[in-house]
Amino acid sequence: MIIQKSLKLNTSKNFEIIDITSAINDLIDIDNGIISIFSRHSTTAIVVNENESGLLSDFEFMLENLVQDKFTYEHDRIDNNARSHLKSFLLSSSECLPIRNSRLDLGTWQSVFFVELDGPRSNRTLSLTIIGE
Amino acid sequence: MIIQKSLKLNTSKNFEIIDITSAINDLIDIDNGIISIFSRHSTTAIVVNENESGLLSDFEFMLENLVQDKFTYEHDRIDNNARSHLKSFLLSSSECLPIRNSRLDLGTWQSVFFVELDGPRSNRTLSLTIIGE
Amino acid sequence: MIIQKSLKLNTSKNFEIIDITSAINDLIDIDNGIISIFSRHSTTAIVVNENESGLLSDFEFMLENLVQDKFTYEHDRIDNNARSHLKSFLLSSSECLPIRNSRLDLGTWQSVFFVELDGPRSNRTLSLTIIGE
Repeated sequence: MIIQKSLKLNTSKNFEIIDITSAINDLIDIDNGIISIFSRHSTTAIVVNENESGLLSDFEFMLENLVQDKFTYEHDRIDNNARSHLKSFLLSSSECLPIRNSRLDLGTWQSVFFVELDGPRSNRTLSLTIIGE
Repeated sequence: MIIQKSLKLNTSKNFEIIDITSAINDLIDIDNGIISIFSRHSTTAIVVNENESGLLSDFEFMLENLVQDKFTYEHDRIDNNARSHLKSFLLSSSECLPIRNSRLDLGTWQSVFFVELDGPRSNRTLSLTIIGE
Repeated sequence: MIIQKSLKLNTSKNFEIIDITSAINDLIDIDNGIISIFSRHSTTAIVVNENESGLLSDFEFMLENLVQDKFTYEHDRIDNNARSHLKSFLLSSSECLPIRNSRLDLGTWQSVFFVELDGPRSNRTLSLTIIGE
């Protein structure tokens, strides 16, 4: 069985990390299988990690440090968001996760996050594909 | 329905980024589902982002900056391409993407890219698995 | 056909990289399809690359260099492992890989690795979902 759904998100900050675990679980209507979570934008990411506010601040700090603003980026001549794209390249626009007993089969300390890297934006869209039985 | 295909690519530069969106779309013969795109090499990557030439140059620059050539790498004693492998570790050899209406369900500003990190090479091979109906 | 399995691992070092290619192949009981390999922990990762000891040392060195210990991390106030989480953010907790002829369809120089970033630990658990026929 293949089921396709969408999830829309609005963001309110330039960098924002939104825990979408519950929203995804609410959309799951199979018992067992997988879900492909894909963000249809190239300045966002999907990641899985622990939902602890200090850690999420550390994550933002690490990205700022890895994609430094001391350099000149060519894409900024066209659209002033090269660093947002580059952070997205380093992370990923998708995750493919297991479903067991009608829920994401996450560990105790795991959440699924949507990462806004170039907000605020309206109508960020995730394309979800559920495969299972 | 499970369909497996291959896509072969030749590269002509040490670092090269090839937009494979159209080639993948041409191989899709289901209506809805997912496609797993996997590169069978450990000095390449599959990424999704915007096809803008300045941004792709920035991406190459970022990788050079993150995996610096000022260090000595152990793998270079065996095969002089440690940095190519390390860039591949940071990215990913695969992407699992949604298919809707017989096409990749990408956003307006998204393309799928094969990234050559240790070229030029002949017969780089992608293993494609389409699951859907 | 959807088949779900688990693979448990014990680790003996703080940073440890375990080749799980054979263990995964032994669990595959379909002919063709995909396998989603997901680690249920937020201080671990799944990666695909070459199993060469020098390269694996270079990989550890790169991660140490990218997530530097000269900074103060907020998560360390709660649990002294911020850098382990941040390395996991940069890598990924999952890989979705092709299966052909009852085996992972890897290239000649590719292995699948479980990466321990905060060991030693007992009972690290991978959630495996096999989809195919």
